[in-house]
This record gives sequence, structure tokens and C-alpha cells, in this order.
Amino acid sequence: MQTDFKIRSATVADVPEIFNLILALAEYEKLSAQVTGNVENLQADLFGDRPCIEVIVAETEENQKIIGYALFFTNYSTFLTQRGIYLEDLFVLPEYRGQGIGKSLLRRLIEVAKERGCGRFEWSVLDWNEPAIAFYQHMGAEVLPEWRICRISL
Amino acid sequence: MQTDFKIRSATVADVPEIFNLILALAEYEKLSAQVTGNVENLQADLFGDRPCIEVIVAETEENQKIIGYALFFTNYSTFLTQRGIYLEDLFVLPEYRGQGIGKSLLRRLIEVAKERGCGRFEWSVLDWNEPAIAFYQHMGAEVLPEWRICRISL
Repeated sequence: MQTDFKIRSATVADVPEIFNLILALAEYEKLSAQVTGNVENLQADLFGDRPCIEVIVAETEENQKIIGYALFFTNYSTFLTQRGIYLEDLFVLPEYRGQGIGKSLLRRLIEVAKERGCGRFEWSVLDWNEPAIAFYQHMGAEVLPEWRICRISL
Repeated sequence: MQTDFKIRSATVADVPEIFNLILALAEYEKLSAQVTGNVENLQADLFGDRPCIEVIVAETEENQKIIGYALFFTNYSTFLTQRGIYLEDLFVLPEYRGQGIGKSLLRRLIEVAKERGCGRFEWSVLDWNEPAIAFYQHMGAEVLPEWRICRISL
């Protein structure tokens, strides 16, 4: 069955539901043990005095339930001397997959990046997640084989 | 011979020299063909009305020549609900390497990240760049083996 849904920018009232989806994403990735965040910080970072992230959500037309989200921030290319958009999280509830909801979220962000004059739209994927990689390549993404992420946890 | 140097935040007067170092970095990575940026945009993105990046530089004590730089921006972890620092470029002129200048730039940024209450300090490395990987691991970094960067060029 196809769910009727719309894509829109998040509002402050959506923050608790978005945080629940972050928890669901962590569970799906078997990374729940890494979650130390909370809904108050998420709200401050989205809608406080000094916001550093943005979110768009997918919401059902029938009962305005949030069933997916994309959370992103501004990154930068020095070779282009141009802003880009980095997609930190893309998640659709498992029971709503296969209906083009993730694709709609991605497409909206590509439009946002173009409207803002960005040079690139980037994100990361786990190398064993073949369905995701196939989907991203189908959307026109290049998967960079040589770069590895380095991290110091503070 | 050990060069006396200091690490400091960049000023608007440094922008042309920093842009020249970006060109030198691109040449070192054999990626000069990808450079489409210019010094005016770099200045606006560093010191304009809506800055999105920051730079620290390494400067010789003797004649105030800029011999290295680190350019970074704010990223985000939804699992931590916390800002991080993402290091986009780290570069030291080849003739000044092996004197701890890159290490000093990295250490300063780790301090900055801690002062700002960041959860993580991250960057990317090419998987074939073994000396860089060894250096980063020596500095306490974890190289994440599974993540791949996806890119749509706009």
C-alpha cells in the first residue's frame, strides 16, 4: 500500500519525534550503545540562538505522523571555495520503506543544495550496505573508494 | 635545521597566502584540475557576513611566512547531540615537513575542539597514504574502516 506523505522543514514541535527516529536509526545500525545525546540538546542545536543543523521530515498526509527525516549541515570545499551540504542522517521507519520516501528526502536536499549555490552534496555509507550503495548510485552519487574517516573522540 | 614557528588564528591579511597553500595542496595531491575556487570567495567564507569556515596557520618567527595551515568547520553527531570539528585541509609546505608543524596544528585544533565542548574531531585521509595514517594513529586517531563518502557534484 502506498502511503501519502509530504516533505517539509522541521519545526520545534517535531523535535521529540525526530529524536525518537534518531534512537530508531541507532538501533537499526546496532549502535544504540553510542547514543549519549538528548532531546534538549537537539532542540538547541536546531532552533537555539546558534543553530548548526537543519532537518527536513517526511510526514503522513493521513495523521501527520513523522515517518522519516534527513538531518544536514553546511560543509565546505577549499578546491571549489564553495559551501556544500553534508547529510548526517537519512532514515525512514522500516515499515514505510520501498515507497520512495527516502528518495524524496534526498531529492529535496539536492534541490536545497542547488538553491543555495552549493558545489557538492555529500554523505557517508557503510561499505557493506550494498542496497544503500546501489540506491545512492542510482540517484547519481559517486562513492569515493579511497577516503577513510579519521576520528578522535574527546 | 629546526624552524622556529608559531600557531595562530588567520586574519584577513593572510587570505591570499592561504589560497596559495590550497593551490600547493591540490598540486601535491595531483588534483589541481579540480580547483575552480578563488581568493575572493575564500575571503568571504572566512571573514564575510556569514562565515562558515575557520583557519589556523603556522608562521615562521623569523620572517612571518605562512608555512602551513589547517582549515576547519563545525560538524555534528546526532548520536551525541553535540557539535564536532571537521578538519577539511591540513597542509605544511614540503620543505618544512618533519619538524612537528603538522602535529602542532593538529594539537591546537584538538584543544579548540575541547574548549568548545565538541564530542569529536574528525577528518579524512586517502587509504594509500600510509605515512599520514601512521602519523594520525600516533596522534590518537581511529581510522574508521567501513565508511565511504558519497558525493553528488552540483
